[in-house]
Amino acid sequence: MSDTPEQTHPLHLGQQSALPVSPEDAVLDYVPNPRKGSLYLIRFAAPEFTSLCPVTGQPDFAHLVLDYAPEETIVESKSLKLFLGSFRNHCGFHEDVTVGIGQRLFDEMKPRWLRIGGYWYPRGGIPIDVFWQSGSPPEGLWVPDQGVASYRGRG
Amino acid sequence: MSDTPEQTHPLHLGQQSALPVSPEDAVLDYVPNPRKGSLYLIRFAAPEFTSLCPVTGQPDFAHLVLDYAPEETIVESKSLKLFLGSFRNHCGFHEDVTVGIGQRLFDEMKPRWLRIGGYWYPRGGIPIDVFWQSGSPPEGLWVPDQGVASYRGRG
Amino acid sequence: MSDTPEQTHPLHLGQQSALPVSPEDAVLDYVPNPRKGSLYLIRFAAPEFTSLCPVTGQPDFAHLVLDYAPEETIVESKSLKLFLGSFRNHCGFHEDVTVGIGQRLFDEMKPRWLRIGGYWYPRGGIPIDVFWQSGSPPEGLWVPDQGVASYRGRG
Amino acid sequence: MSDTPEQTHPLHLGQQSALPVSPEDAVLDYVPNPRKGSLYLIRFAAPEFTSLCPVTGQPDFAHLVLDYAPEETIVESKSLKLFLGSFRNHCGFHEDVTVGIGQRLFDEMKPRWLRIGGYWYPRGGIPIDVFWQSGSPPEGLWVPDQGVASYRGRG
Amino acid sequence: MSDTPEQTHPLHLGQQSALPVSPEDAVLDYVPNPRKGSLYLIRFAAPEFTSLCPVTGQPDFAHLVLDYAPEETIVESKSLKLFLGSFRNHCGFHEDVTVGIGQRLFDEMKPRWLRIGGYWYPRGGIPIDVFWQSGSPPEGLWVPDQGVASYRGRG
Amino acid sequence: MSDTPEQTHPLHLGQQSALPVSPEDAVLDYVPNPRKGSLYLIRFAAPEFTSLCPVTGQPDFAHLVLDYAPEETIVESKSLKLFLGSFRNHCGFHEDVTVGIGQRLFDEMKPRWLRIGGYWYPRGGIPIDVFWQSGSPPEGLWVPDQGVASYRGRG
Amino acid sequence: MSDTPEQTHPLHLGQQSALPVSPEDAVLDYVPNPRKGSLYLIRFAAPEFTSLCPVTGQPDFAHLVLDYAPEETIVESKSLKLFLGSFRNHCGFHEDVTVGIGQRLFDEMKPRWLRIGGYWYPRGGIPIDVFWQSGSPPEGLWVPDQGVASYRGRG
Amino acid sequence: MSDTPEQTHPLHLGQQSALPVSPEDAVLDYVPNPRKGSLYLIRFAAPEFTSLCPVTGQPDFAHLVLDYAPEETIVESKSLKLFLGSFRNHCGFHEDVTVGIGQRLFDEMKPRWLRIGGYWYPRGGIPIDVFWQSGSPPEGLWVPDQGVASYRGRG
Amino acid sequence: MSDTPEQTHPLHLGQQSALPVSPEDAVLDYVPNPRKGSLYLIRFAAPEFTSLCPVTGQPDFAHLVLDYAPEETIVESKSLKLFLGSFRNHCGFHEDVTVGIGQRLFDEMKPRWLRIGGYWYPRGGIPIDVFWQSGSPPEGLWVPDQGVASYRGRG
Amino acid sequence: MSDTPEQTHPLHLGQQSALPVSPEDAVLDYVPNPRKGSLYLIRFAAPEFTSLCPVTGQPDFAHLVLDYAPEETIVESKSLKLFLGSFRNHCGFHEDVTVGIGQRLFDEMKPRWLRIGGYWYPRGGIPIDVFWQSGSPPEGLWVPDQGVASYRGRG
Ligand SMILES: [Ca+2]
Ligand SMILES: [Ca+2]
Ligand SMILES: [Ca+2]
Ligand SMILES: [Ca+2]
Ligand SMILES: [Ca+2]
Ligand SMILES: [Ca+2]
Ligand SMILES: [Ca+2]
Ligand SMILES: [Ca+2]
Ligand SMILES: [Ca+2]
Ligand SMILES: [Ca+2]
Ligand SMILES: [Ca+2]
Ligand SMILES: [Ca+2]
Ligand SMILES: [Ca+2]
Ligand SMILES: [Ca+2]
Ligand SMILES: [Ca+2]
Ligand SMILES: [Ca+2]
Repeated sequence: MSDTPEQTHPLHLGQQSALPVSPEDAVLDYVPNPRKGSLYLIRFAAPEFTSLCPVTGQPDFAHLVLDYAPEETIVESKSLKLFLGSFRNHCGFHEDVTVGIGQRLFDEMKPRWLRIGGYWYPRGGIPIDVFWQSGSPPEGLWVPDQGVASYRGRG
Repeated sequence: MSDTPEQTHPLHLGQQSALPVSPEDAVLDYVPNPRKGSLYLIRFAAPEFTSLCPVTGQPDFAHLVLDYAPEETIVESKSLKLFLGSFRNHCGFHEDVTVGIGQRLFDEMKPRWLRIGGYWYPRGGIPIDVFWQSGSPPEGLWVPDQGVASYRGRG
Repeated sequence: MSDTPEQTHPLHLGQQSALPVSPEDAVLDYVPNPRKGSLYLIRFAAPEFTSLCPVTGQPDFAHLVLDYAPEETIVESKSLKLFLGSFRNHCGFHEDVTVGIGQRLFDEMKPRWLRIGGYWYPRGGIPIDVFWQSGSPPEGLWVPDQGVASYRGRG
Repeated sequence: MSDTPEQTHPLHLGQQSALPVSPEDAVLDYVPNPRKGSLYLIRFAAPEFTSLCPVTGQPDFAHLVLDYAPEETIVESKSLKLFLGSFRNHCGFHEDVTVGIGQRLFDEMKPRWLRIGGYWYPRGGIPIDVFWQSGSPPEGLWVPDQGVASYRGRG
Repeated sequence: MSDTPEQTHPLHLGQQSALPVSPEDAVLDYVPNPRKGSLYLIRFAAPEFTSLCPVTGQPDFAHLVLDYAPEETIVESKSLKLFLGSFRNHCGFHEDVTVGIGQRLFDEMKPRWLRIGGYWYPRGGIPIDVFWQSGSPPEGLWVPDQGVASYRGRG
Repeated sequence: MSDTPEQTHPLHLGQQSALPVSPEDAVLDYVPNPRKGSLYLIRFAAPEFTSLCPVTGQPDFAHLVLDYAPEETIVESKSLKLFLGSFRNHCGFHEDVTVGIGQRLFDEMKPRWLRIGGYWYPRGGIPIDVFWQSGSPPEGLWVPDQGVASYRGRG
Repeated sequence: MSDTPEQTHPLHLGQQSALPVSPEDAVLDYVPNPRKGSLYLIRFAAPEFTSLCPVTGQPDFAHLVLDYAPEETIVESKSLKLFLGSFRNHCGFHEDVTVGIGQRLFDEMKPRWLRIGGYWYPRGGIPIDVFWQSGSPPEGLWVPDQGVASYRGRG
Repeated sequence: MSDTPEQTHPLHLGQQSALPVSPEDAVLDYVPNPRKGSLYLIRFAAPEFTSLCPVTGQPDFAHLVLDYAPEETIVESKSLKLFLGSFRNHCGFHEDVTVGIGQRLFDEMKPRWLRIGGYWYPRGGIPIDVFWQSGSPPEGLWVPDQGVASYRGRG
Repeated sequence: MSDTPEQTHPLHLGQQSALPVSPEDAVLDYVPNPRKGSLYLIRFAAPEFTSLCPVTGQPDFAHLVLDYAPEETIVESKSLKLFLGSFRNHCGFHEDVTVGIGQRLFDEMKPRWLRIGGYWYPRGGIPIDVFWQSGSPPEGLWVPDQGVASYRGRG
Repeated sequence: MSDTPEQTHPLHLGQQSALPVSPEDAVLDYVPNPRKGSLYLIRFAAPEFTSLCPVTGQPDFAHLVLDYAPEETIVESKSLKLFLGSFRNHCGFHEDVTVGIGQRLFDEMKPRWLRIGGYWYPRGGIPIDVFWQSGSPPEGLWVPDQGVASYRGRG
């Protein structure tokens, strides 16, 4: 818990950064894991996510929750925010977008383990949720439920 | 609070009754108000309501809540259930159906006052609620909020 | 706030009392208002209420909430419990039973004001709530909402 | 509650419609009020709303709720959805966007009365809500609370 | 996360499609799994479901939740909506309808694993829930609770 | 999901049936399992239950939830309702009544597995819950939590 | 918002203070109103309250909420805590204790206005709530609902 | 489910009993297990608990939940209530009191298994919860979560 | 809803700004009201507030909610965040800090109307809420409840 | 449950103690485990936590929950409060602070097992939660979920 974080120079935190025009253009910033060697979990909740439907071109919205156990690096949260924002003009199916976000972070960051839950707003009265993980959680890792409310319609 | 309700002979309660084929075919059963002369409120909650969209023919669903202050008669609840069920193959817009149900009961039963809230399931991600009443509530009548949860999407 | 409540001798509190066989047999116990002259509200919530349907003989259940502003006396709560329990074998419609309980207490106790809400369990998928009060609440009396959850079905 | 809605020909409902590129390009579709002459309320909840911050260019998100009492026309819900979607690339402050949406609908549709609530996602840990109405609600109109949960942070 | 979904041509998405007259007439549309080879879960929540009671002919309502881990294909959501809508005039017991929907999708789509929960509205004051799965979940698959509220009656 | 349920002739469903005078007099109706051979769970929630205290004779109330995996037969829900209603004049301790209901159904129906939860209203400020099951759930059976709210007193 | 609160010397805050043996022995500490001349509301929530039943001697528990608009002084919160704790061995009826606490503070502090809500734990399955105020709230004072959950029993 | 409970003669149920002056003076009443030989769970929720802090002498409050699987006997609930009430003037640390109550019942009653959760009110803004069990639950015993809400502070 | 907000140059938004060392050092940024002439409400929720107790020097925490109807200007939200952050090392009583924040904004911004609610974390088991407004709300202004949950302790 | 806690002399409980200026200056007080030899869990919830961002210097807030199974000693809660308060002017990343608090307590107290959950307020619309434990929980220890609500944004 040292006060002098000299070894970390985030790309975006504390800076003005424009929204990347597509996921391909977004650069995620991986900084050294400040608790390297400890098995622990980091959770991001991102209720402000939107992309486009590849068939109709209409906007889609989702609440995303990302869980991972870091290895060498952690993902800096402002770069994650910009990456998620880069889907604003991207067309993709719910299943594809959700799993794709999880797998890109997993492939680039190489954490011990990663999980993503995508809770999409209803279309045709029926919401889709998508749940992907890189495998069973490592033994000894504590992974609480994501606890996102189930969809209930009205009444 | 007499045990012998000899003066009330419901049409449907305790009987097997087929679903009317349309609202026009449904007959509501108005029985004597057992507390005539008292100003009080009766509330029905009907979370099992469905009709059809007049443009697309697709099913619509709603949670309805009906409040009224009776005068000479009250509406028997099984006949109300059958009346609401008669909308199953009826085509109508949300606004029209909700206000129409309220106005039919108001016109036929002639209560002191009546209110209907229609809480429809989302279409295009946007639910519609419809609220009609026959006028300001009579002075001295107690009308609690209907308390139906607002729509929240996901997250 | 005297410790010596010598002037109050409840009929039932601290005694074993059998359930009256009918509402007519139940005797409500009205004891002196310990804060006579103050305008205040007493609320009872009674989620354990059951009576019988006069048409089918089947059991009905309700959650009742009673509010009143006392004048000379207050109703002792154990006698209220026994009175409510006396409806166990009584046949009555929801509207009749609810308003009848309120009016009996109002007529016998003569409070400044009284209100009853009856929240009945669904029959045919549709619950009935009944709301009666003896008139508009007296000016200066504080009457919070009863706050009983609306019926929501499933989901 | 007629089954033959011949007099209404929605522009978008049942059609494929592209998202307008800006609010200025969006055309709202006002159709005849099916219950003209009745004083009632229509509520739309739109939890899928996004625009851009005029200073930073970053996305903003909001949950909008719109209430109005129609006069000659009602707004068709699919055209409303497209209008709201047209803010996707629009830059505006929370206060300006919320009140502006309400006032455009009020000016174009000329309802008896209109109200809009904008519940924005937090920035800097502090969410902004914006509430505008065209005046006090007309006497006799029933306007339930919008009932959107207050922001609570964590814990 | 490619923008060009050329390999998927949904039967219904973006089209006007009439409601099939019976489950037998409904054709489910299975499209290629966009993340084939990944073990993940897709969840649909369908709070707008209705069928008929085979004994009384009265309408039944349910909130359904479907979970599955795809193999070669995924089910397109609009075709699922139409399939569920096709039960509108179908007579079936709660247990039969719920398990039958799950087994039809399992037999036709041949996913790695599938689960369905049917949360039916109360009849006689007692709701029935039905839970079926094709076997124990595959190791490494993440399956959150469906989280549908238990039935509570009133109060 | 056949429409013609000719093989099932329920004793009570669609009939008027009087309440049995005691549990011993109640006859449960076991009908053929419509999905025989499938391992699945059926849940009944019964929030309208009342019996009598064997020591004081005062009414007791409970919310019961029953889960079971059927084998040859399922229990018809109206006969279950009548059986539960037959406890209205029965005297029994909370533990005895709850486990007894579960064991009677288990002994008569011979399901693969059965569980009952009894959530009793407080006495002396302390509610009792009783949980019994016929053994560990069979492998591959999906048994969600019953999810009944814990008792919280006030505040 | 001066940093130097020299004019206030609380009796108890920051001190070790023994619990008074009875309400009569408790001394409430009234300190100068730091915003004298402003019309505003102070609310205390006290979920840790207990006294004794004057008939049975058994413990009673309550959740109390106190609202007032100060005039010359405010009540220091630690002295309030000790005053409430002094009821631990005091015998009193729910109605008497609740109104008595409100009236003692009103008489001693002489605020512009005061309100107390007492939310007692159930006895015989029926909780009592008591609501007293010194009169209608002064015009221009903002008094939000106390928002204490209604009692719901089980289920 | 026999009506004649001749073998059980509770010490306190249906009697007037004074509060024991200390835990040492309290006598718990263990009566024959009415379902001896069945593996089942009994849960008591006791939200009305108070003791004293051994350092400051100030009152402490807790919500306790006790779960156990009986063997030869069960604990009679009124004697449990009196035992818990006997802590009113007892000084003890949260950890000590909670575990001590569980261990005393375990030692005296010798159940198959026992668990206690103590949910204490905050001190210094930080509540303490204490969780003890006599060992891992026996195989085949069903033990639902106690489901007491986590502490959330404000907002 | 113009895209070119040239007339507004916020001091802090989009900039790095250090936390002011005291409220006296904080400069609030008032920018032109973008909807001048419209009567509407702006609400800020600030769950991240902390100051110091003037007697003990210990940290205090609060959840603040601010409502106002702007006149010539609105307060820029980042400057509000910095102003609230400036209380971090400020000593003040709950009542004083809450009302003081409201009055400073009212005096500097001169809105049509302003209201502040301060929901403080418990001390001694008793939280304090403080509610101030500049007067009765102007006629025609819509002011929803702040809807912050009441404090409930445990259980 | 002895009344004479002579062997424990807390450093801070019942004393006035100044806030330590940094975590390094804070001294945690470990007192003898009053139930040494029993395997049980102690949970602290600390919703009043704040530190500083090492990059921007802006305040951060968190709700922390700490669970541990003690061995020789337990941590005295007032010393824990002061330790947590010592982060007020400490700069640290969310991950580092959360895991660091858990590890310091684990290293100094040497419990059988320890877990910490840090639920941080959102930054850039995205909250971070951090979950660390010293290993898998010991067999036979009961560890309920921490049950902190997931972040939901608005709506
Ligand atoms: Ca792209
Ligand atoms: Ca028709
Ligand atoms: Ca939809
Ligand atoms: Ca949301
Ligand atoms: Ca009778
Ligand atoms: Ca529903
Ligand atoms: Ca524009
Ligand atoms: Ca068919
Ligand atoms: Ca209930
Ligand atoms: Ca019997
Ligand atoms: Ca006394
Ligand atoms: Ca002792
Ligand atoms: Ca909070
Ligand atoms: Ca200062
Ligand atoms: Ca409580
Ligand atoms: Ca430091």
